[in-house]
Amino acid sequence: MEDGIPIDMKAAIYSYNVWVGEVDGNRLRDLLDFTLYRAGFEVLNFMEHHFEPQGYTAIWLLSESHLAVHTFPEEAKAYIELSSCNKTKNALFAEIISPLGIKEVR
Amino acid sequence: MEDGIPIDMKAAIYSYNVWVGEVDGNRLRDLLDFTLYRAGFEVLNFMEHHFEPQGYTAIWLLSESHLAVHTFPEEAKAYIELSSCNKTKNALFAEIISPLGIKEVR
Repeated sequence: MEDGIPIDMKAAIYSYNVWVGEVDGNRLRDLLDFTLYRAGFEVLNFMEHHFEPQGYTAIWLLSESHLAVHTFPEEAKAYIELSSCNKTKNALFAEIISPLGIKEVR
Repeated sequence: MEDGIPIDMKAAIYSYNVWVGEVDGNRLRDLLDFTLYRAGFEVLNFMEHHFEPQGYTAIWLLSESHLAVHTFPEEAKAYIELSSCNKTKNALFAEIISPLGIKEVR
């Protein structure tokens, strides 16, 4: 410990990236909100954008870095990217999201 | 062309990640704002957070996906991550940011 900063707070970013076959923005937002909560992330802020004629982006500002989702409806897929300084929570996020019914694609 | 979607709009995410030796949030925000503008990105939304006792996160929601910066003042470094569906603008961003005086670190 040094100045209250835990030793495991060493600056590092762990990435979790996945392409999924879900493009409904509201459904993705709800699933990701739930996954963040279950993995123990703290959401500090949020923004989203619905593109015309289609497409959706949502970004969560976390105590532990950030999460983003971008949909590409023209190709029936979306890109989810979690960048976090907390390795344990990142692993939990990956574990929790897989059985939630979002099909992984490439 | 199909429904007005240019052929090069194929769903792909190009990542540019770098650790830099700058931790001043305002300076990073200004530099990144400028770099986005010069690289031709369209900023649709923005959010930032100043952590206590230290640390700063800023995230830009772009027409072309997103950009984030997270500072780790306790280690005198920050992580910049651009995730964009536009390969050309991503390359431009990388080109423009390097001479701006942010020292790359690891």
